[in-house]
Amino acid sequence: MTEVIIAGLGQTSAGEHWDAGLRDLGYHAIDTALKDAGSLRPQALFVGNMLAPNLSHQSHLGALLADFAGLSGIEAVTLEAADASGGAALRQGYLAIQSGLVGTVLVVGVEKFTDQVGPGVEEALATISDSDYEAVQGMTPTAQAALLMQRYLHEYKVPEGGFAGFAITAHANGAGNPNAMFQKAIKPETYAKAGMVSEPLNIFDVAPPADGAAALVLTRRDLLPANWPHPLVRVAGSATASDTLALHDRKDLLFFEAAQLSAGKALKQAGLILDNLNLFEYNDSFSIYAALALESVGFAVRGKGWRLAAEAEIALDGRIPCATLGGLKARGFTGGASGVYQAVEAALQLRGQAGKNQVADARNALIQSLGGPASTAVSHVLQRVD
Amino acid sequence: MTEVIIAGLGQTSAGEHWDAGLRDLGYHAIDTALKDAGSLRPQALFVGNMLAPNLSHQSHLGALLADFAGLSGIEAVTLEAADASGGAALRQGYLAIQSGLVGTVLVVGVEKFTDQVGPGVEEALATISDSDYEAVQGMTPTAQAALLMQRYLHEYKVPEGGFAGFAITAHANGAGNPNAMFQKAIKPETYAKAGMVSEPLNIFDVAPPADGAAALVLTRRDLLPANWPHPLVRVAGSATASDTLALHDRKDLLFFEAAQLSAGKALKQAGLILDNLNLFEYNDSFSIYAALALESVGFAVRGKGWRLAAEAEIALDGRIPCATLGGLKARGFTGGASGVYQAVEAALQLRGQAGKNQVADARNALIQSLGGPASTAVSHVLQRVD
Repeated sequence: MTEVIIAGLGQTSAGEHWDAGLRDLGYHAIDTALKDAGSLRPQALFVGNMLAPNLSHQSHLGALLADFAGLSGIEAVTLEAADASGGAALRQGYLAIQSGLVGTVLVVGVEKFTDQVGPGVEEALATISDSDYEAVQGMTPTAQAALLMQRYLHEYKVPEGGFAGFAITAHANGAGNPNAMFQKAIKPETYAKAGMVSEPLNIFDVAPPADGAAALVLTRRDLLPANWPHPLVRVAGSATASDTLALHDRKDLLFFEAAQLSAGKALKQAGLILDNLNLFEYNDSFSIYAALALESVGFAVRGKGWRLAAEAEIALDGRIPCATLGGLKARGFTGGASGVYQAVEAALQLRGQAGKNQVADARNALIQSLGGPASTAVSHVLQRVD
Repeated sequence: MTEVIIAGLGQTSAGEHWDAGLRDLGYHAIDTALKDAGSLRPQALFVGNMLAPNLSHQSHLGALLADFAGLSGIEAVTLEAADASGGAALRQGYLAIQSGLVGTVLVVGVEKFTDQVGPGVEEALATISDSDYEAVQGMTPTAQAALLMQRYLHEYKVPEGGFAGFAITAHANGAGNPNAMFQKAIKPETYAKAGMVSEPLNIFDVAPPADGAAALVLTRRDLLPANWPHPLVRVAGSATASDTLALHDRKDLLFFEAAQLSAGKALKQAGLILDNLNLFEYNDSFSIYAALALESVGFAVRGKGWRLAAEAEIALDGRIPCATLGGLKARGFTGGASGVYQAVEAALQLRGQAGKNQVADARNALIQSLGGPASTAVSHVLQRVD
């Protein structure tokens, strides 16, 4: 097995970039990652994106970004798996290096919500659900999450405000991330007074759409230049799994099988167990998904995921720090870029470059990118080598 | 290097499938390919698709098709590189097996043009061009091809009707393919009298949009069951290259650099030269692209690609048979499925199962999938092993 090193990191701030299009955001992240990677030059570019064909009337982002970044000629394609697209792009970059046919690759996730020329965001987001059987009934991703949360509250008798801990943790951590969309902590009262989006989801249970791009340079360890300046971080485990697209086909609404399956495979490949992990970048597009991910991966028993947030076990100094740089809730819901943001953020933690939000002695991180209600789940274990 | 075998083939007919959606088409191709592959079971599904997010308001096709095909749980993602998406999916399936982490994969290309719920086909197709600088000016893929053909006619003084040979060859071969959209030969007079689409492209210079799906099962040779019933076909070479997305950035309008680069790499990997090839499945979405591909890959000198068609050198018994089962022109322009159709068709030739259209003693085939005006080019060499 080839040792795959994360050799370059780049990101734009997440938020409303009215002055930057897809190519500008993608270029900025690529350029930053390439500078971070010193003299390494990529032979391939894997782009993660979810909604550009609809919101920006722009597909073919592989050729677009390779061209705009001055890399025209290299292999360049787009990976799409709804909001797990970024994770899928990282996975493909990893497989490409493992194949032995490519030495160094760029992985970039990019999403552009503002200034859209196509349909509105919620209509575009509905394309990731089952168009024939769910979206056509108005069942958008937000409606799916609301249904799951309602069922969860009913099954497990969660007290009022029981989910507040996810947003409170995310915003507390966003305050320490200069690239986060929201850099201000919130109080329990703020959560309690928030307006409903789709009952019982209030506005703090929903991650806000954010423009942004993040990029990684991956390479084989033997290709690293001498006197490499950064602490070494490798991809120690990688797996993707799928589940039914439509909720009505689920045997069990409150368990994310693909999240369990992909995390289990990635951990097994890395030779680690949950206790070895120092942080978990989960997919908190909705607070209910964070809770279900914690339970499906195994950090909490069923029905108790919310308590990890309520009891600060996911805080930076808790048992398993989550959303350490704000997560999707406070960094921003960067759509198909989110999986790459997670990787950049986890790599910063493992390098010891996470600033005020540094998790002490972070050596092993699990990151997990979900497409819809975990119809796709992409999990990676990142590990500090030296 | 792992020997990657094409172990299963499936396709729907190409054409107007008013009674079948994306999932039905995809399922039919997958089911046929899995039956063809005997007891092999895939661990991953790579989907090639170009326009479903726009035309059918459906993305997330990996999870959708894995689910509908009864494979829920497996790794499943979508590759997008405009009309080279099918080639890109094949390439990713190949890389996945070469990585050693996956043993058997499904590659499926699917496209659905009829019965669209989104914008019209030409508006959706324009998303593969540069949205900010070309599509916004009305520069659709058809307009790009018309500009290139106009320039070609001007530069090389091609006689009237000089391009007719591409459509005549394609339709002659379509007549022998029960899955082709058009199964009727045409005469030079038919081409001469055809109406213009975008001058100088007439309707026979443009491949017709067709619904369809094609699928492949790829596996490692050591995983093939005993008493394998089919002649063995392997993927002997694989490469993807990119070029500028916008035509205005091209140094040379009449040469497809990415087509040259990717074909050259794939041939080099296979240890072959052009003279070793028994057939070439080119990307004849427009006749001008077929001519430029023949020149860029090296079968003809610049300005003479059209003569290979005019002089029947691309016929089934010619020097280098092309579009042997109708190509995009007569089988149908199956969008992001085209690259997988090409692979299925070339594999049928190499197995000796191409019926009336069998190329004698076919052992080595080059297939090439183009995204737009070769802004992406994916090339594969398929080879009969035994």
